[in-house]
Amino acid sequence: MSGNTIGRFFTLTSFGESHGPALGGIIDGCPPGLLLDETILQRDLDRRRPGTSRYTTQRREPDQVRILSGVFEGVTTGTPIGLLIENVDQKSKDYANIADTFRPGHADYTYQQKYGLRDYRGGGRSSARETAIRVAGGAIARHYLATRGMRIRGYLAQLGPIVLDPVDLDRVDDNPFFCPDPARVGELEDYMNALRKSGDSVGARVTVIATGVPPGLGEPVFDRLDADLAHALMSINAVKGVEIGDGFGCVDAKGTAFRDEITPEGFLSNHAGGVLGGISSGQDIVASIALKPTSSLHLPGRSVNRAGEAVTVRTTGRHDPCVGIRATPIAEAMMALVLMDHYLRHRAQNADVHSATPLIPATPDR
Amino acid sequence: MSGNTIGRFFTLTSFGESHGPALGGIIDGCPPGLLLDETILQRDLDRRRPGTSRYTTQRREPDQVRILSGVFEGVTTGTPIGLLIENVDQKSKDYANIADTFRPGHADYTYQQKYGLRDYRGGGRSSARETAIRVAGGAIARHYLATRGMRIRGYLAQLGPIVLDPVDLDRVDDNPFFCPDPARVGELEDYMNALRKSGDSVGARVTVIATGVPPGLGEPVFDRLDADLAHALMSINAVKGVEIGDGFGCVDAKGTAFRDEITPEGFLSNHAGGVLGGISSGQDIVASIALKPTSSLHLPGRSVNRAGEAVTVRTTGRHDPCVGIRATPIAEAMMALVLMDHYLRHRAQNADVHSATPLIPATPDR
Amino acid sequence: MSGNTIGRFFTLTSFGESHGPALGGIIDGCPPGLLLDETILQRDLDRRRPGTSRYTTQRREPDQVRILSGVFEGVTTGTPIGLLIENVDQKSKDYANIADTFRPGHADYTYQQKYGLRDYRGGGRSSARETAIRVAGGAIARHYLATRGMRIRGYLAQLGPIVLDPVDLDRVDDNPFFCPDPARVGELEDYMNALRKSGDSVGARVTVIATGVPPGLGEPVFDRLDADLAHALMSINAVKGVEIGDGFGCVDAKGTAFRDEITPEGFLSNHAGGVLGGISSGQDIVASIALKPTSSLHLPGRSVNRAGEAVTVRTTGRHDPCVGIRATPIAEAMMALVLMDHYLRHRAQNADVHSATPLIPATPDR
Amino acid sequence: MSGNTIGRFFTLTSFGESHGPALGGIIDGCPPGLLLDETILQRDLDRRRPGTSRYTTQRREPDQVRILSGVFEGVTTGTPIGLLIENVDQKSKDYANIADTFRPGHADYTYQQKYGLRDYRGGGRSSARETAIRVAGGAIARHYLATRGMRIRGYLAQLGPIVLDPVDLDRVDDNPFFCPDPARVGELEDYMNALRKSGDSVGARVTVIATGVPPGLGEPVFDRLDADLAHALMSINAVKGVEIGDGFGCVDAKGTAFRDEITPEGFLSNHAGGVLGGISSGQDIVASIALKPTSSLHLPGRSVNRAGEAVTVRTTGRHDPCVGIRATPIAEAMMALVLMDHYLRHRAQNADVHSATPLIPATPDR
Repeated sequence: MSGNTIGRFFTLTSFGESHGPALGGIIDGCPPGLLLDETILQRDLDRRRPGTSRYTTQRREPDQVRILSGVFEGVTTGTPIGLLIENVDQKSKDYANIADTFRPGHADYTYQQKYGLRDYRGGGRSSARETAIRVAGGAIARHYLATRGMRIRGYLAQLGPIVLDPVDLDRVDDNPFFCPDPARVGELEDYMNALRKSGDSVGARVTVIATGVPPGLGEPVFDRLDADLAHALMSINAVKGVEIGDGFGCVDAKGTAFRDEITPEGFLSNHAGGVLGGISSGQDIVASIALKPTSSLHLPGRSVNRAGEAVTVRTTGRHDPCVGIRATPIAEAMMALVLMDHYLRHRAQNADVHSATPLIPATPDR
Repeated sequence: MSGNTIGRFFTLTSFGESHGPALGGIIDGCPPGLLLDETILQRDLDRRRPGTSRYTTQRREPDQVRILSGVFEGVTTGTPIGLLIENVDQKSKDYANIADTFRPGHADYTYQQKYGLRDYRGGGRSSARETAIRVAGGAIARHYLATRGMRIRGYLAQLGPIVLDPVDLDRVDDNPFFCPDPARVGELEDYMNALRKSGDSVGARVTVIATGVPPGLGEPVFDRLDADLAHALMSINAVKGVEIGDGFGCVDAKGTAFRDEITPEGFLSNHAGGVLGGISSGQDIVASIALKPTSSLHLPGRSVNRAGEAVTVRTTGRHDPCVGIRATPIAEAMMALVLMDHYLRHRAQNADVHSATPLIPATPDR
Repeated sequence: MSGNTIGRFFTLTSFGESHGPALGGIIDGCPPGLLLDETILQRDLDRRRPGTSRYTTQRREPDQVRILSGVFEGVTTGTPIGLLIENVDQKSKDYANIADTFRPGHADYTYQQKYGLRDYRGGGRSSARETAIRVAGGAIARHYLATRGMRIRGYLAQLGPIVLDPVDLDRVDDNPFFCPDPARVGELEDYMNALRKSGDSVGARVTVIATGVPPGLGEPVFDRLDADLAHALMSINAVKGVEIGDGFGCVDAKGTAFRDEITPEGFLSNHAGGVLGGISSGQDIVASIALKPTSSLHLPGRSVNRAGEAVTVRTTGRHDPCVGIRATPIAEAMMALVLMDHYLRHRAQNADVHSATPLIPATPDR
Repeated sequence: MSGNTIGRFFTLTSFGESHGPALGGIIDGCPPGLLLDETILQRDLDRRRPGTSRYTTQRREPDQVRILSGVFEGVTTGTPIGLLIENVDQKSKDYANIADTFRPGHADYTYQQKYGLRDYRGGGRSSARETAIRVAGGAIARHYLATRGMRIRGYLAQLGPIVLDPVDLDRVDDNPFFCPDPARVGELEDYMNALRKSGDSVGARVTVIATGVPPGLGEPVFDRLDADLAHALMSINAVKGVEIGDGFGCVDAKGTAFRDEITPEGFLSNHAGGVLGGISSGQDIVASIALKPTSSLHLPGRSVNRAGEAVTVRTTGRHDPCVGIRATPIAEAMMALVLMDHYLRHRAQNADVHSATPLIPATPDR
């Protein structure tokens, strides 16, 4: 319980269901004096927004966010920032047929078992619609971090069988897939068109990179930077795996190759993904997530109803055939929230430390 | 800061360095009335203990744990349980040569940058020696969970290139590798002998499974069961990746295959690893971790010293050539801590819920 | 920072300024299945509402609360409950003159020093207007506790020199002072009329009592029930002291008189205020608070401006001449939040304990 | 549950029972680079230590504290500091007779009801012996604060009917009562001798003052500095009331007199006790506590046993006839812990704020 808050120093507390009147959240702990208005949040919200391409859900939500407190005369005051996004395009009738049925691969059954009841409309609280507030809150963190030279960028690293290289991160926002390789956007379009025709869905992999992160962020031994990133990223709907740096690639690696050697000019590699002993090293922070294929399918699936009887489920509502497509801004937001929290944590304890130039220059991966 | 506590309702707070006088910890929130004495903790500690085979570090620590509070006349009282393990086999002189040098792949550089100073003896707080207290605390959680029918078991799933199947989990403790396939222990021995001769190290993969977990554990939206598992497992030294269920295997999967269909007799598969929407489904909870190869190597590596000058580092102290070998009991402990925390959290909020038999029978994977 | 959340298992996170667009909050951790709608919250909000008598501020706020999530088909779902109260009667121009001046006895100077800037309109976040959300959130806790037989009632125990006895707690809501002695309401009216004419303000004392609280709530050693009550009550604007039971009356008491002796029929007295060793005893929980006189006065006072120059301050805006008058519902709300939190905490750890009838019957004070 | 940690950024987690093998604790979040060794902690421990005068319990405990981690080469490293104090003079047999009886005014009954069992030896976890670790942990906070110009000093302000003025705070440690008026120590001795002869006990009042606290510490709206002080001080055994500044004296005060007017030379008074809107003002922080008379008395009292039968209780063990006498170092420690926590919290969020000289000079009360 009380699991709807993330962070310890810079916290986001969130509320809202897929088909309730509104989503909302509270950012607590934002430093005062930060220039902030709704347009800064809206920029990221628009990147996550549904209904903007034919490859995602057709639910049309303007996702217009309002700042209700914590900002005065255009700057943050240090007091909590209230955020509100009204739901506009709820179509509750679409979901009446699943009130008594547990969709396979969804949280229907687990919410019912946990709480004894559930808001079945669009998955209620378990809907990925909730992530809109993460993006809004994350945008504040991101905006602050940018004033400290930190930049967070994500991209689609794999869509089903299609592996994508980070050819040009500046072009990620130019296509609806957050594809970092402009030459392969057509391939993705073809794949998604065929997928939609088949009625099936597919998984994806998203990578997020933070540059400009100073060495020293992260706390031993439980609240390591990588552990908190794993928590934040795994909390995104549909995520089944998290990697830092090379991740599972380290299993069959040798120490001589994996340990990132150091020279006076910088690190020679970044297999570790910018984290050593749970603390940032000054290199790029690199994290990847695996997103499972959407379970909402037009193709029938076996399940049971509340009486425990066998039923066949076929989703008729709107959905994303690949939730990974819209996941990039969400993953960026979660990384921003974690870095912001650790930036303040580090500063609280170590403001006395002589904060000289890092001994080793940052050597970004790209 | 203040990152040395894990859990919210059932908490472990830990202290201690590799070469300090002792490691210790406090378990807070343990229900009263649990039969408990040191032998229950010692069982798990002995499984993690160094120096018991030729394949791990030769540091010889008895890892004898003392319970200093919270137990009266053989049962827990509900008050905090103080734990203490004295360090016996510290050889500080072994480490004098690294006082001014940052070993590549280690936390030497990041601790120095974070705090402006560091206890360089054996890595200080960043040493995996700290995990002894995790195992001790986790043993209490595990012991309580067992009284509620939950069982947690781990095994070595991959050592470098050698992939191991869970042929017989009851035999995992019969060999120094936690290998679940008795027929392949010789192969592991040969591999490790050759590895040691080469002076290099290798990564590993460990899988942990919890059976008997009731549906309903886990909190939306941030403190999901899988998110908290990811946090806890990623906080283990050397871990670079966490998977729930099929993990990254979902990236190239189709929704029709991945969604675990349900019948009145139970789930038909467990690709999700027992978690749906962040809440346990009643199936086995399955998590895997990737452990990087040890960075302490007899083979020389490039690095810098505190003056920023190029140096060559060669580790002469004792170390594990594959930290993954001893990681199984630690991963089990971390899963136990998370499940215990969520068991109490769930109970706090939902004790009013009619707690009948789950609608769908548990269908363990094996 | 991040100080805008109270509670650990049942939490209220709040936002909003006196003259911003809205106040809001999130209740996290409410058990599912509780019948709830806005009317239940509105009842308590209306008791706190300004502008309802001539003895309090003339700001007219309907304080209409909206529930934005966490309730489905009339019952709570276990997910977070979003609350929103729009500000309607802000008159920002009233406050323009204090933008550069620090009102004595107010938070103007401390906010400026802390944050380097402040929302000066009506005190911004430091305004007691923020307590509306406490009352809304507390009403949910109170409503749940009532279903478990717990009842929380407060009253005005002293207004300036006028000490009031709890003659009839059922009549407290019949007068604008929350006076528990109907015969003395006229005396209070006369006092307040004279006070207002003088332009001065006065302090007050409010007492809150919880009946029906089972023994066992409260945690050793820091999060004692009385310690958490002290925290919650001292966090109310203008409160300068908190007492449990006899409070400061114990300083000159003897142990033979003060220790509450026990008989098979119940406790013989309740000097301790229902808490022993930080844990509820089954007796009434009794707490009192001291509220300072309002610092906003029409009478001139010395202060400085942002340039550090001496100025004379005279408040012209609307204010309460005795903030204690409207404090009763707020104090009740805070006690409800604390009891709710501890009820769930106790249940999490001790659900295994055979929860028989308490050995000693509850012997309410009245 | 999990109530044995205090603080959010600088935390003390504690364990230990009156008659267990040891007390211990963990300080997490201490900044690195602080010169620290056991003598600094021992100084405060010796001031609290039992058995040093005839006016307190005759239990003889050396209260020798060991630092087990977090300090390397004489300075803190930023990692958690483990603390251990072995119990030496437990006489368990003294308490066998209360195993089945609930001493009136003690936590015996409430622990039994909460947990279903209890460590009855000397009150177990509810014993004030636990406060030794608070003093040890508080000494670290205090030591750090001193390096930042903050000083915390307490004194006995009232013993039963004897009210003491802070005539000379530098003489407080010269007598066993922490009496701030050297001329009246004899009066206190006579009173205590007569009290002991009577077999009764008496209450006390202790005041603690922090000087040199910069403006800006404390968080709106729940974690105000005064609210956190109230929590910390009320968590001390036997405390029944907490006041900030004038405390309950404000109830019958007028606003014109109570609001502390400001001039360019400083505040003209300090009725508020150094806190405005929950945030420190730069004035002295002043807090007072009421301590109830000890309930352990040689004079018989009525109670019940575990079977619910009426019994007569007479305490034969060692005890303090006035727990207030030894409370001064404990109250100082708790104030130090709270100030330290808020110092770091403030720094985390507001390090960007131009931290110039406070506008108004600090005007200490004395």
